[in-house]
Amino acid sequence: MRPPSRQCSAERKFDVSKTERALKEVDANLESSVAALLELISIPSVSGEDAGKAGIARAASWLDEVLTEIGFASRVVETACNPFVLARSEGPAEGDKRLLFYGHYDVQPVTPREAWTHEPFAPEIVEEDGVRRFYGRGASDSKSQLWSFIEALRAWKTANGAFPAEIVILLEGEEEMGSPSLGAFLEEHREALDCDVAFICDSDMWSPTRPSITTQLKGLVHETMTILAPNPDLHSGHYGAAAANPIRILSKILASLHDERGRVAIDGFYDGVIDLTESQRKRWRELSAEFDGTGEVSLAGGVIEDGYTALEAMWGRPAADFNGITGGNQGPGGRSVLPGSATARLTFRLVAGQSPETIRTRFRKFVSERVPEGCHVAFDGPEGNAAVHLSETNPFLAAAARGLEAEWGRPPVLKGTGGAIPLVGALNDGLGLDCVVLGFILESDAIHAPDEHYDVERFHRGTRSWIRILGEIVVDATA
Amino acid sequence: MRPPSRQCSAERKFDVSKTERALKEVDANLESSVAALLELISIPSVSGEDAGKAGIARAASWLDEVLTEIGFASRVVETACNPFVLARSEGPAEGDKRLLFYGHYDVQPVTPREAWTHEPFAPEIVEEDGVRRFYGRGASDSKSQLWSFIEALRAWKTANGAFPAEIVILLEGEEEMGSPSLGAFLEEHREALDCDVAFICDSDMWSPTRPSITTQLKGLVHETMTILAPNPDLHSGHYGAAAANPIRILSKILASLHDERGRVAIDGFYDGVIDLTESQRKRWRELSAEFDGTGEVSLAGGVIEDGYTALEAMWGRPAADFNGITGGNQGPGGRSVLPGSATARLTFRLVAGQSPETIRTRFRKFVSERVPEGCHVAFDGPEGNAAVHLSETNPFLAAAARGLEAEWGRPPVLKGTGGAIPLVGALNDGLGLDCVVLGFILESDAIHAPDEHYDVERFHRGTRSWIRILGEIVVDATA
Repeated sequence: MRPPSRQCSAERKFDVSKTERALKEVDANLESSVAALLELISIPSVSGEDAGKAGIARAASWLDEVLTEIGFASRVVETACNPFVLARSEGPAEGDKRLLFYGHYDVQPVTPREAWTHEPFAPEIVEEDGVRRFYGRGASDSKSQLWSFIEALRAWKTANGAFPAEIVILLEGEEEMGSPSLGAFLEEHREALDCDVAFICDSDMWSPTRPSITTQLKGLVHETMTILAPNPDLHSGHYGAAAANPIRILSKILASLHDERGRVAIDGFYDGVIDLTESQRKRWRELSAEFDGTGEVSLAGGVIEDGYTALEAMWGRPAADFNGITGGNQGPGGRSVLPGSATARLTFRLVAGQSPETIRTRFRKFVSERVPEGCHVAFDGPEGNAAVHLSETNPFLAAAARGLEAEWGRPPVLKGTGGAIPLVGALNDGLGLDCVVLGFILESDAIHAPDEHYDVERFHRGTRSWIRILGEIVVDATA
Repeated sequence: MRPPSRQCSAERKFDVSKTERALKEVDANLESSVAALLELISIPSVSGEDAGKAGIARAASWLDEVLTEIGFASRVVETACNPFVLARSEGPAEGDKRLLFYGHYDVQPVTPREAWTHEPFAPEIVEEDGVRRFYGRGASDSKSQLWSFIEALRAWKTANGAFPAEIVILLEGEEEMGSPSLGAFLEEHREALDCDVAFICDSDMWSPTRPSITTQLKGLVHETMTILAPNPDLHSGHYGAAAANPIRILSKILASLHDERGRVAIDGFYDGVIDLTESQRKRWRELSAEFDGTGEVSLAGGVIEDGYTALEAMWGRPAADFNGITGGNQGPGGRSVLPGSATARLTFRLVAGQSPETIRTRFRKFVSERVPEGCHVAFDGPEGNAAVHLSETNPFLAAAARGLEAEWGRPPVLKGTGGAIPLVGALNDGLGLDCVVLGFILESDAIHAPDEHYDVERFHRGTRSWIRILGEIVVDATA
């Protein structure tokens, strides 16, 4: 492993000038590349909804055309669900490395639509408190992300006449719906994806001023459960005091899912869990002080598993969370109905040692045992993903760390995340491909929420970060 | 009090023939009166929604015109919210009694719209298993009800040349939204409403073959509570293990609202409650056997307060029920959001001795004490109503009982209800007006639910019941 310290060699100087030329090109082209990005954000490529199908197709073909223009052999690869865009650089490239870049062009639904104060698919630049911001679904997660490495690769080639390495670009259209076609796709394109490293650009910064590389990702199990009473909707006044109420049953089950220590009460939930190491806890506890000081998100009123800090719980401990609940009268008006059913949407975030299918089975058993006789429960949930631990000693990670530090002036935090990126497990554990996960979004971008947004400066510095990372890799390759 | 047994006098024979003539007129006019009823149901007079305003206005003016045609001095009386239709018979009438008839022309919202398999506002007669049924919001609750007494009064006058008594008709447009204007209206029209009795046609039958008169109504308090986290929507993967989750807080509070004995756990909830008398319990326990045998509704999985039968709990014990719950991802799709808020809609059904405002205050205290620091709760709810106990020895009730028995072949059950009709308390306890509450709907009509329906035969027999009740009153008046 190459140490992550800076080097001073003749080659390095030469390559630094390539880096500098590419940075200049990024700077010069900023307004034009932001304009293209806004065009991409304006395409409503919502996955997981039939209404999003047309937007998905349009975004894929838009990206395919752009990549072809830049000098890639690109194609839209259809799947049983949403297409991938798969591109490979053509012509000469420096060194003999082959780099994979991954992003996803699909976005979350915009519900609840009425909570948006900006149009979700008509972004424009607005200046707020001196920040040039743009609002839109996917502005942060993840169109700005994928556009940052595409623009960096374009700029490098424009400035230096060739790509910095052989490049493969993989853009997914199903990330926000659990990547149903991913497994089959990777299996089929195993050869085309065989690279020295995969850069996964779908994660966040540690803070607005400090970059990060994510080396530990939780697994994910989605579950939808619906409690069904033996009757359809009834008049609450007539039967409320006697007949089964699915909201009451559901609330009771949800309330029993955590114990007083903040632990998940499902039998066997923690079986096999690989706990945090002492060195990891020490490192994360040092970060915790900084985390609590970011002020982005308040943890007031939250319940953290006994014996762990917030950061340890978020990155390294398994959890169950409630994402949605629906039943009976949704308003407006005071319809006093005793509903026939009620539904909750949950996610389980898993750590190393937990199997998604075992957790699902145990959860369903837990619930089924608590549904009163005469009532029923229906479950639904897509395939889950296990947790992923990435190597922290891979030389590409070191190069990325140096590149990020050069741009942001501070070394990146090597962090965990409670978020899941199914692809990372599939590439790393499935195809044996080293992954480096980084990105530039922030929780305060309102990702997955109404009024999602991003800003021109962060896009600019993200793109510049990629140039610096590419520069480090070229140095490594020619050193 | 006149005993409820039948009488045999010369006058009675005379009046029976008037009754018979009126019944014939009802029979002969059935198809035509059902056609008019379907026209009324087709008007979307939804209260509690801005979108329903036009339908409310149209239904009020439709009814006003019809009543004018039949021979009433009718007018639409505007209020701060929805108008009343107030009509008074003109011309000669038998005897010196003055009878008030009450119904409501507003209907519940049709949400969830997608659960309807029939159009909610385009009723037509469909034959199902030999039953001529019609579907539509308000088909049962309560347009068929008010139309049954209007048609009976029309038929009596057509058949016999005069109304059977002086008649006042009061049709409300706010019943389904908690009657916000009722208090002010009654106060202002106290004189116009001064009658010997008020027939409130907004209740149900004991079973499809046995009529009932409701003499005990619960009070009602609507409450909407919204739990607010200190953050807007967040990414559940990132913050689910640490930040406050309003669905989790809400579930826990709802789950704690009842104890293991099925009692409401709010401090002081049962203070002052007047419990059932032994004679009432004995009578209701005899009915319970019949109730459990109707097969209309399954009580499997329901929780009934310890020490009471289902019927006692439904009619005579205070209760808290959950009518709606909403938060975060409502689907479709697996948006794994940690929501910023979650809302529950509840109703409290009160018995004699409980004050709506005290219950509301105690509930809000109960909830507020359980909201974790850093989170907030917002409450909302219209004015509540206290429970009402009506006299069972009022001579008009006896006349109604005889009339119902004559039509259905079985004496009516004198019953309680968990449902609230704010007007009854206002007339009975507020204006000192004796009330007789009866009606012909059934829980299986899907009242307040999708695919609400009614049938031609029940409408026919309901109308005939009114003729027989009017006949009994004329006998009484001329005896």
